[in-house]
Amino acid sequence: MFNGVLDELVNNLKTMPGIGLKTAQRLALHLISIEKTTAMKIADSITDSVNSYKHCAQCNILSETDPCNFCSDSSRNSQVICVVENTQDAYLIEKLHEFKGRYFVLNELLSPLDGIGPDEINFPKLYKLINSEEVVEIILALNPSAEGESTINYLASQFEDKPIKITRLSTGLPFGGDIEYTSSLTLSNALKRRYLVSD
Amino acid sequence: MFNGVLDELVNNLKTMPGIGLKTAQRLALHLISIEKTTAMKIADSITDSVNSYKHCAQCNILSETDPCNFCSDSSRNSQVICVVENTQDAYLIEKLHEFKGRYFVLNELLSPLDGIGPDEINFPKLYKLINSEEVVEIILALNPSAEGESTINYLASQFEDKPIKITRLSTGLPFGGDIEYTSSLTLSNALKRRYLVSD
Repeated sequence: MFNGVLDELVNNLKTMPGIGLKTAQRLALHLISIEKTTAMKIADSITDSVNSYKHCAQCNILSETDPCNFCSDSSRNSQVICVVENTQDAYLIEKLHEFKGRYFVLNELLSPLDGIGPDEINFPKLYKLINSEEVVEIILALNPSAEGESTINYLASQFEDKPIKITRLSTGLPFGGDIEYTSSLTLSNALKRRYLVSD
Repeated sequence: MFNGVLDELVNNLKTMPGIGLKTAQRLALHLISIEKTTAMKIADSITDSVNSYKHCAQCNILSETDPCNFCSDSSRNSQVICVVENTQDAYLIEKLHEFKGRYFVLNELLSPLDGIGPDEINFPKLYKLINSEEVVEIILALNPSAEGESTINYLASQFEDKPIKITRLSTGLPFGGDIEYTSSLTLSNALKRRYLVSD
């Protein structure tokens, strides 16, 4: 249907998450239909962002500055480290305005079959960070997926000899969820971890 | 949550159809997280496409060549003109491999309240095209929306004194649709335009 540069644009747009062939085609046609300057603004701001953002040397979060705003903010509590899979998860937690500690981005979750081991998830850097600060709690804010669970278990085991509280996000029924449509794994876990209504 | 160039990227991505704030944020974070060369490819191919595509002087379709592949293809039947709102609709019809005539892109639908009149929908150009070729049929392949209906009625009225068949796409229940979830307007029209099962 398309050819040449437009076909290439469709293929390139398709590499993005949640963008399938049809959406990519719609976006590509949109981009060549609109005012040239508007489309060029999109291209330019991709270039600008890609060139401006780098991983914070301390916590790996993607940031325009290094150290990032979180690491350089002395009002944040460096004794509590929230370990997340990626920058987006850190931003989602930050948006709650409830966490005032520091972040640490793994960038990957452990997946030995895919060759992703402790080095790939930046474990040596995390270990060094934990040792250099007087950390009292590590919150492992990782997805309760197979890879997330492996990573949680691995990280917890690495710090078990230290006087540090290792926590993870609670698991159970999501608010607004429906027991009828909940997996038996989630339901069984929710039953096991039930808590007092008065809590 | 974001600032500087990344915030600008989010705002620019948000200008695209079907891209809301959350998707724009996800895409922006994706773009700064992946290999720099992959992200730059996206930016470059937007630039390349925007610079390569222009409106065909004859039919207004967006094309790398002028005249476009449809207008320059002498094997196509120039006596049948399919009038569409935009390039995407022309491509969607072309994908059916059933239409072998020419296209004409309006770029807009009539909307007097928004200041979109006959000139804005390229009517003078269409009129000239119809007069220069021995057109036997004009297919008004426009959406059955308020603007589409106005445009269909306007265009039909402009050609009614000519010996040209003016047709429009059939209206009725969509295949796979459900009468229960169909608007009364669609249902009433489907009843009125009912046809013999043997047809």
